[in-house]
Amino acid sequence: MKLVTIVAEALARPAIEQLVNQVGAHGFTVFPVEGSGAGGERRADMGEYSNVQFEVIVPPAIAQTLMDRLYTDYMPRYGLVVFEGDVRVLRPDKF
Amino acid sequence: MKLVTIVAEALARPAIEQLVNQVGAHGFTVFPVEGSGAGGERRADMGEYSNVQFEVIVPPAIAQTLMDRLYTDYMPRYGLVVFEGDVRVLRPDKF
Amino acid sequence: MKLVTIVAEALARPAIEQLVNQVGAHGFTVFPVEGSGAGGERRADMGEYSNVQFEVIVPPAIAQTLMDRLYTDYMPRYGLVVFEGDVRVLRPDKF
Repeated sequence: MKLVTIVAEALARPAIEQLVNQVGAHGFTVFPVEGSGAGGERRADMGEYSNVQFEVIVPPAIAQTLMDRLYTDYMPRYGLVVFEGDVRVLRPDKF
Repeated sequence: MKLVTIVAEALARPAIEQLVNQVGAHGFTVFPVEGSGAGGERRADMGEYSNVQFEVIVPPAIAQTLMDRLYTDYMPRYGLVVFEGDVRVLRPDKF
Repeated sequence: MKLVTIVAEALARPAIEQLVNQVGAHGFTVFPVEGSGAGGERRADMGEYSNVQFEVIVPPAIAQTLMDRLYTDYMPRYGLVVFEGDVRVLRPDKF
């Protein structure tokens, strides 16, 4: 299974919750974090504060869909940092 | 080493702290999260809010014991999401 | 890419932010956690409460530099737990 982590400006939270449910994730956590964001070509991908961090457990195919959607539809509009890692889940049939 | 993450209803916190110490983990963090939980056959594995997230660093054998105990003794009683991943730890001799 | 997680006594936060920026990380999150720390030969590597958890995305070489610096310069002074894992990042060119 994949653990997808999404760090986003707090403003983006409702939109991301909607997407996470839409792609078929069965569970997620979200909590407030502070952070300074990826610099790169845009000046401020993430604000200095008032970010939220989502953690979503999904099968690989759904992780891919989720990341594709974040890349094409959300990154142009919101400050986001997104990454995934491999995890072993108890009762993976539930996700 | 293994990073075991346990998302649980806040109610389960003291019981999980006790278990984590009992299996021999030397350190953990815990913080409050919101989240909606794994659906599956039971209606609500996790409440919508008031969850806590534990992160525990342990050697593989202890991770296995911890996950086995969570599965057999805690999942029937509490709403839990549990997963583990591989990490490389500074000073692994301490865990 | 690497996800480096640093759990530290809150007191160490400004010093760690400075280090994270110094080694060239482009983004991090930080949030408060409770936790009890690695026992080992020192009595209390981490206080029972008032810790912070940093999560930093960096290329492997910077992760190594960051962990080396934490080991040599920060662990003697502060209570720290540090570990890294592998992640796949959207737009890795930005980190």
